[in-house]
Amino acid sequence: MPSIFTKIISGEIPCYKIAEDPDNFAFLDINPNSKGHTLCVPKKEVDRLLDLDEDSYTKLMQFSRKVGKAIEAAIPCERVGMSVIGLEVPHVHVHLIPLHSMKNATFQYKESFSTEEFEEIAGQIQDKLK
Amino acid sequence: MPSIFTKIISGEIPCYKIAEDPDNFAFLDINPNSKGHTLCVPKKEVDRLLDLDEDSYTKLMQFSRKVGKAIEAAIPCERVGMSVIGLEVPHVHVHLIPLHSMKNATFQYKESFSTEEFEEIAGQIQDKLK
Repeated sequence: MPSIFTKIISGEIPCYKIAEDPDNFAFLDINPNSKGHTLCVPKKEVDRLLDLDEDSYTKLMQFSRKVGKAIEAAIPCERVGMSVIGLEVPHVHVHLIPLHSMKNATFQYKESFSTEEFEEIAGQIQDKLK
Repeated sequence: MPSIFTKIISGEIPCYKIAEDPDNFAFLDINPNSKGHTLCVPKKEVDRLLDLDEDSYTKLMQFSRKVGKAIEAAIPCERVGMSVIGLEVPHVHVHLIPLHSMKNATFQYKESFSTEEFEEIAGQIQDKLK
């Protein structure tokens, strides 16, 4: 069965899309640690980060850097943190999280936004990728 | 003033070293989230991950992949997670953390080891890099 992220990439499940290249896809986390929290996912469905072949891994990290710099430019924060855990969805995903304090990095606290707010956040980040 | 990580890399402060290449250095975190928790640090002293130039960033990520795979081979765990936060030490560091549950990823729980245990852990990871 395709992962929830494969369904998002294919458009079967809607998302607030941020960016896409031939190998990777980025969209807002809808249960974010902070405003602007984004997931970068390889289109190839691999469970664990370190099981990606070197080329796919490097492309995912370079894609994440580009998206992360756009988030840092769009969303006021101390810095954008990066986290790869993957205990819940068996499809590699890089969390890019605008950090204001350590609290945003623990995954213990979540923020809520309306559809309109998510769309506005996605638009602000996309603008910095142009 | 040089960062604590620059002092570790230069040998001024001792560490449980794991690996080194021309650009990067890896050693055990002495306040680990779990057994085998390792830090990968670029020798160039830059505060924020996304301020590293693309070449240095890519080299750090490829180095972290190599060290992470050795940790995954040496330390029984569900997988090795990766986290870059950096709110405490202003010198980029990639956390590589053997994950057993989400608890190991939150930075809220720490484990303790003796000098002998840290040396044994470092040796086990180094063996997988040979």
